[in-house]
Amino acid sequence: MDDRPMMRALRGETLPVPPVWMMRQAGRYLPEYRAVRARARTFLDLCYTPELATEVTLQPIRRFGFDAAILFADILLVPHALGANLVFVEGEGPRLSTVTTPDDLARLAPADAVHSTLAPVYETVRQVRAALPAEVPLIGFAGAPWTVATYMIAGRGTPDQAPARLLAYRDPETFDALIERIIAATSGYLLAQVAAGAEIVKLFDSWAGALPGPLFHRYAVEPARRIAQAVRAAYPEVPVIGFPRGAGAGYASFAAAAGVQALALDTSVDATWAARELQPQLCVQGNLDPLLLVAGGPALDRGTRATVAAFAGGPHVFNLGHGITPEADPANVERMLRAIRGAQG
Amino acid sequence: MDDRPMMRALRGETLPVPPVWMMRQAGRYLPEYRAVRARARTFLDLCYTPELATEVTLQPIRRFGFDAAILFADILLVPHALGANLVFVEGEGPRLSTVTTPDDLARLAPADAVHSTLAPVYETVRQVRAALPAEVPLIGFAGAPWTVATYMIAGRGTPDQAPARLLAYRDPETFDALIERIIAATSGYLLAQVAAGAEIVKLFDSWAGALPGPLFHRYAVEPARRIAQAVRAAYPEVPVIGFPRGAGAGYASFAAAAGVQALALDTSVDATWAARELQPQLCVQGNLDPLLLVAGGPALDRGTRATVAAFAGGPHVFNLGHGITPEADPANVERMLRAIRGAQG
Repeated sequence: MDDRPMMRALRGETLPVPPVWMMRQAGRYLPEYRAVRARARTFLDLCYTPELATEVTLQPIRRFGFDAAILFADILLVPHALGANLVFVEGEGPRLSTVTTPDDLARLAPADAVHSTLAPVYETVRQVRAALPAEVPLIGFAGAPWTVATYMIAGRGTPDQAPARLLAYRDPETFDALIERIIAATSGYLLAQVAAGAEIVKLFDSWAGALPGPLFHRYAVEPARRIAQAVRAAYPEVPVIGFPRGAGAGYASFAAAAGVQALALDTSVDATWAARELQPQLCVQGNLDPLLLVAGGPALDRGTRATVAAFAGGPHVFNLGHGITPEADPANVERMLRAIRGAQG
Repeated sequence: MDDRPMMRALRGETLPVPPVWMMRQAGRYLPEYRAVRARARTFLDLCYTPELATEVTLQPIRRFGFDAAILFADILLVPHALGANLVFVEGEGPRLSTVTTPDDLARLAPADAVHSTLAPVYETVRQVRAALPAEVPLIGFAGAPWTVATYMIAGRGTPDQAPARLLAYRDPETFDALIERIIAATSGYLLAQVAAGAEIVKLFDSWAGALPGPLFHRYAVEPARRIAQAVRAAYPEVPVIGFPRGAGAGYASFAAAAGVQALALDTSVDATWAARELQPQLCVQGNLDPLLLVAGGPALDRGTRATVAAFAGGPHVFNLGHGITPEADPANVERMLRAIRGAQG
């Protein structure tokens, strides 16, 4: 049995001190990240250059001693590998060619053709796993199909994912075919990450909260269930973390039906509710407000200790409720770690 | 006893056909609204000119025969009346002078000084009530304190309300004092609307979903409870509708503790969950995806009928889960009404 704290928590064990890592722990709040970023011409180059992606993946482990590393990559690499043009515009976010018609869909690559484009990601996984201390597991990840589809349909980030919702209403056949393509590509992508050395996988459904109630099961729970099943069928020992961000009460139905081993909770989730409704079923991960790493001070200490205490009765991986922001102070990350590890350990 | 369908549903009666109105029913999707808007120099002028505000309030009642009218105004009139500079920039949204320090707070007007600025709103309420058919109740409204505070602190709309969350962490005294000022001003504002003829009031907490879990009770539930209590103490027959948009599972604690008579559900809320967890306690309102009024067709019919059916077992006011968008087709509103009123009545 793998007795690393992260693996024990994900198996459902209640630990005296929760393992901890942070979403976007390899990111712009770290000066050493910004230095490596400056060596790549574009953000995509950074994702596809194994030596650079490996280096930024390892940086937060060296600096903070987190209990898990997470592959440095982007959720839009799958659409890119399916044939979408993709650029990241500084200060504006991603721009992609759009998929809104059967013809657009027909121009995409088949799901099993993504691996040539994604090969550098698998190489990053291999290099990270080789360089990482044995006691630190490596998390692979992908975007969930609904969230990935919102970008592919709109060609960019949108405040309310309206273009994707409209396509689902107006042309459900095309929408469903796109979701199917992404499910297949994502399953293959995650299986290849595990084959290369990832020991945990996480599925980021960043815009799950924009799904209307009647579509949540079909487009958030079901795709996650199928992808988790594909991973677990081949690798029964690899835990899958779901993250239906903004799902609200939908977290409960996701926990019951998606077949994941852990649920990442967004910042808005009430910890008392989650401890009562979700934690008896599976490990929860979260959910400190990342802005507390900007604010610092006693508010950070109180918030950290309250999160640890709220989830102390069941399996818990400490994390933020959303990615750490560029404005966060690395000294506040140290302070958070002292509050976690000093709180009970 | 007031036997108008809207009042019966809000009192907790289950009706064979739910009463229906739409958030932002007086809005840009209507050509007759755009014609009146063109007669006002600015959006604020439209809000503060009783004859124009009255006309746009009445337009959707004439065209569609909705079961309730809602005052035409804006949630930022309260900060404006408290002394904030406020302009609406075409295509960009509101810009306000910010309140982030004790000095800024000291420059705001006292809560009971808002009425001179807001007098034209009360005059609109009087004119609407006089012109409205007796069988159509008039809804007054205000922004909830947290949501109003997010604009006052940031000076504009923000994607994640980060400036307000940061102030709550860094300077809780100033933040709490601002919330108190808004609670007091909002209570007085709603009482004056009722005195002028509003028969129902609604509190819009559009950004409740951005509150971190540990702050939800304090900054969403408690302010709503106190404002609802102020209204009900003076006017026990006036129902209060709460709308903690994006609250997720927090809808349940809001229902239990805020003392409101109805809860407006946002688009993401699962109707089956809400029918089971919320409707036994109070009337629910919602929650068709407003994009279905853009998409139209069989998807609109199905979505409308499914919403009616999901809430048929308890008190329900049919509405959208968010405001109708400018791109919506008025013919689709007619189609929605046929599906509601033909579905069961």
